[in-house]
This record gives sequence, C-alpha cells and structure tokens, in this order.
Amino acid sequence: MSDSRTVTAFAPASIGNVGVGFDMLGLAIAGAGDRVSARRVPGPGVRIAEVRGLDGEVHPTLSADADGNTASVAAAALWLAAGGDGGLELVVRKGVPLQSGMGSSAASAVAGAVAANALLERPLPLRELLPFALAGEKVASGGIHADNVAPSLIGGMVLCPPVLLPRMIALPTPQGISSVLLHPDLLVSTAESRRKLARGYSMDQWLTQQGYLAGFIAALEAGDVDLLRECLQDVIIEPQRASSVPCFPAVKEAALAAGALGSSLSGSGPSVFALCEDQLAPRVRVAMEQACRGFGYDCQSWVSPLNAPGAHLEELP
Amino acid sequence: MSDSRTVTAFAPASIGNVGVGFDMLGLAIAGAGDRVSARRVPGPGVRIAEVRGLDGEVHPTLSADADGNTASVAAAALWLAAGGDGGLELVVRKGVPLQSGMGSSAASAVAGAVAANALLERPLPLRELLPFALAGEKVASGGIHADNVAPSLIGGMVLCPPVLLPRMIALPTPQGISSVLLHPDLLVSTAESRRKLARGYSMDQWLTQQGYLAGFIAALEAGDVDLLRECLQDVIIEPQRASSVPCFPAVKEAALAAGALGSSLSGSGPSVFALCEDQLAPRVRVAMEQACRGFGYDCQSWVSPLNAPGAHLEELP
Repeated sequence: MSDSRTVTAFAPASIGNVGVGFDMLGLAIAGAGDRVSARRVPGPGVRIAEVRGLDGEVHPTLSADADGNTASVAAAALWLAAGGDGGLELVVRKGVPLQSGMGSSAASAVAGAVAANALLERPLPLRELLPFALAGEKVASGGIHADNVAPSLIGGMVLCPPVLLPRMIALPTPQGISSVLLHPDLLVSTAESRRKLARGYSMDQWLTQQGYLAGFIAALEAGDVDLLRECLQDVIIEPQRASSVPCFPAVKEAALAAGALGSSLSGSGPSVFALCEDQLAPRVRVAMEQACRGFGYDCQSWVSPLNAPGAHLEELP
Repeated sequence: MSDSRTVTAFAPASIGNVGVGFDMLGLAIAGAGDRVSARRVPGPGVRIAEVRGLDGEVHPTLSADADGNTASVAAAALWLAAGGDGGLELVVRKGVPLQSGMGSSAASAVAGAVAANALLERPLPLRELLPFALAGEKVASGGIHADNVAPSLIGGMVLCPPVLLPRMIALPTPQGISSVLLHPDLLVSTAESRRKLARGYSMDQWLTQQGYLAGFIAALEAGDVDLLRECLQDVIIEPQRASSVPCFPAVKEAALAAGALGSSLSGSGPSVFALCEDQLAPRVRVAMEQACRGFGYDCQSWVSPLNAPGAHLEELP
C-alpha cells in the first residue's frame, strides 16, 4: 500500500463487426475513447469515485455502482485473479457516447483493466487482459463477444471469432485506407437489437456472407482495394437492423456516392462507418454528416487510420 | 487448319472444401490428374476420339459422348466463345478416379479447356479459362462451384467463393506443410450428397464455421501452424456426410493420432485428406492407409506440397 500513484488508461472506441464480420471482426478508431484513472486504497474491492462525461460533469446516466460499470467489473476481475493487495478506487471519464455502436462499454472495460493492471506488482502483458475486459463487457452486453474489446485493447483490425477466444488475430492493415465513423444523436440498445435477430439462416445466406468475410481477410492481406470494395458487404445482419436507424440508408448511400469502398452499421448502430481511400476521407465524412443532418439528427464523426492504436497508459498533467 | 499439332494438357486432382471452406476453398494435389490431348479436325464441333483410364485401356464407364464429358463441354464452350476455326478431336486420359471426391470432373474440364486454348490462334491467359472449365464441370455437378476447378486450373490453395466468381484468390501457402490425400475404393455421388444437406442452419452454427474459415485464412497468411490446427474444422458439412463413408472416422482419427493438423472429407468424399507438417507426412499417410485397409477397403494415397502446380501443357514423347 506504499504505492500512491494514480494511473490513467485510455482505451479507444471501436467499430464492431466492420459490416462483414458479425461478432468476430473489430476495428479501433482514433480520437475517441474512455479514460479510467485508478489508485490503490485501503480495504478490499474496487469502487468508483465518480463517472464523468464528455463535458467533464458528473455523467447524467451512468451510475457509480461498481457492480454495474464495465470499468470496475473488469478491474475487479483482474485485481481478484492477480491477487492485488487492498482495494482500488476508479475515476471513469466517458469519451465514447453510450448506446452508440462505438464500443462504449468495451472501452470502459478495457481502460479499467489496463489501469488496474498498471497497479499490480507484476502487470500482465496487454493481450492477457482480454478475459478481464470481456468479464466487464459482459455486464453491458450480456454475452461474450470480443469484436469491440479486442480492437480497443490491441488496436487496429482484429479478428476474434467467439470459437477461437481468447485468440485475437491482428490482421494486416493496408496503407492508404481510412475509416470514417459517424455517430448520429440517437440511441440503440445492443442487447435488444441482438434479441431481434433471426435465429435460422439458409445455407445460401451464410455461404454468401462467409464468402465476403473470407475475401475481405484475403484482401487485407494482399492490400487489394478492389477486393475490399467487393467484399465489404453484410447481407445478413445489416438488413435486419437498418430499420432501427432511420438515417442509415441515406448516410450509407452518401458515403458510397462520395467514393467509399463500403459502409455499414457500426455494431448494432446507430453509428455508421465507411472505409475509404485516405484522400477521399474528408469528402466521405462531410457527405455522411450532411446526409445525417438532412435527416434532422445532430452528429459527430471521426476519421482514423486502419492501424489506430489500442489501449495505453497516459501521463496526465 | 494448317495447324496439325496435337497438344496435351495436364490438370491436377484437387481437394474441394478443404474441410473448413465449403464451396469456396480448394487445394491442388500433386501426382494425380487428368490429361486431355487435342488436335484440330475439319468440320465444326468438338468430339471425343476416346476416353482411357488409368490402365491405358478404354474407360469402362465414361462415355465418349461429347455432350456428357466435362472435358469436351469445357473445350467446346471455349472454342465457340473464342471463335476457333473448324473442329477439335480430343483424347481424354483419366488419372483421377471417378466419384472420388478428388475433383475428377473438374480436372477433365480444366484439361479440356487448357488443351483447346493452346490451339487457338490467340490463347487466353490461364485464369480466363475459368468460366469455360466451370461450364464443363457443371455437366457433372449440376451447379457452379469452383472449389475444384479453381485449384486444378491455377494450383495451390485457392479461395473462390461463389459470390465472388470469377475471382480466384490464390492464398499464401506456408512452407513446411503437406497435404495427404487418401482415396478409399468406394463411390460417392457428389450431386446426391449435396441434395442430402440440411437447408437451414442456426446462427451459432454458421458463425462457428465462419470463425474457423476466417482464422484459417489468417493462419495461412501468417504461417501460424497452431492456428491452422485450431481452425481446420468442419462442424457443418462433415457431420452430415461422414456416415456415407464408413471408414472416415477411423481414417481421420488415425491421421490426427499420427500428428496431422486436421483431417476431413475431400469434397463429398469418399476421399479423406489431412494437412500435416512435412516431416510427418509419411507417417500420416501410412496411418491413414492402415486405418482404411483395416476397414476392408483398398486405397491409394498422395502426398503433396500446399503449392502443387495447376494445369499446364505437357510435351509428350
């Protein structure tokens, strides 16, 4: 308990599914993320001192209940497993909007695990934090899917099929391709969106989607932009979710018209992403924003390289 | 018609599906294949002079009817499309056993197209022969699947999802890995085997299989043998087809016990393949043969590098 440091971890927002890889593909974004500061305190357990929002004020909806926050659940899971001495107190600063499809709960979980890890006598390697971050994420999503946690943890484009967990496969990220992520100002519940998905699929349906995913991975490896464009398709999940995001068809169409390689919902939405060649990113971003505002929704957007960094400790002033 | 050459094309047998990639992944093998010799003759159309078997004798079951042989249908499709002058006469030499799951009909179709192509005034690039070879293959299989035609044409491990045709994506083939292909002496009808497959699948089922395929492709790219071992699985098709090949479970188990990375049916069977590290290939091969003979079936087998060559013209003595 002689360690009185406060450490702060940043974990980025992320694009779940990346359109083509439901539940198994994720992409880190740059410039948006959650921060969790941690310090050791007497007594057992992990508690949350406060949760603050983008504006620096106390967060209007997220509770500081340690059992219900993904950051503290992840931190506590690690602290318990690694035999951390005493307790932890966390301050959570949300930079990722809630229920945005931007991996908000995952970013908090990852930042919580990374901050707690830094206060262990023998911190674990970053990749070994995955199960603890997933334990946190589970509080929010109710299931074990790593398509937000994995890219938030290790950055870049990550393949993480549930059947291969805890493997996280960092895919090659071709030079010259950017992601554009647009967040319209409306809410979608991931858990509810999941419950609405059909349970049965024809062989044609899944073979088509599997063909696109297989081709997409090969295209990333080969840096084949034409093949990326052809394969960035979601014929299964997107059609089922599009109706819950009224502006989605217009935003997607605007992205494609501006030259994007492809566009789909980020996670369960409402956020919409596009991939495009770097030089087109400003044009694609403006087109998506205009289409969204044309629908009457305010919005924010981010442009990122495909190899955006994952979670890391920050020096605070 | 001044061209009186006889040209001979060889096209290899192949492993359809490669276990993990139903209808979209194929692997060329070395040492077994069909040969088609072609020469120009007066008059229109493509005819077959004779079809001979492995023993050099007239083939006991394959007819020389040009409309029913995949070699002549492929050759005719190309000859017609490319405006070939006059007619063609073919001699087909089957080196691939029929209904073996080794891509027998595809090998004939590819060899037919490659031989006819060589007699055109302006032969097409090899990859552009795909649609003509597929037209031939369709006579036998009734559908458009390139998982045998594509590797037989261009060699190696090929990703060729139906939704991306006519694309054929040559996947990287890590050094140090061999395929072992065992052909038990029994027959399975591909078309009938296909009709028996279930039509509907749960999301869990297809996401599991899609995860394995995605991981397998990433593993090929990374040369990650552990990941190949983990991903070389077929949880959807193999369980439905295993019962039609009584020796399959024993042969697969023998391959795995001998150290193979994975094993499954080749196409719709009865052939069984395994992938293994090069130095284990002799042991895996013997183990598979012994298991098969223990079941009372005679068998043949082949060991190939993952980058086995595709179709090519041969100089005949």
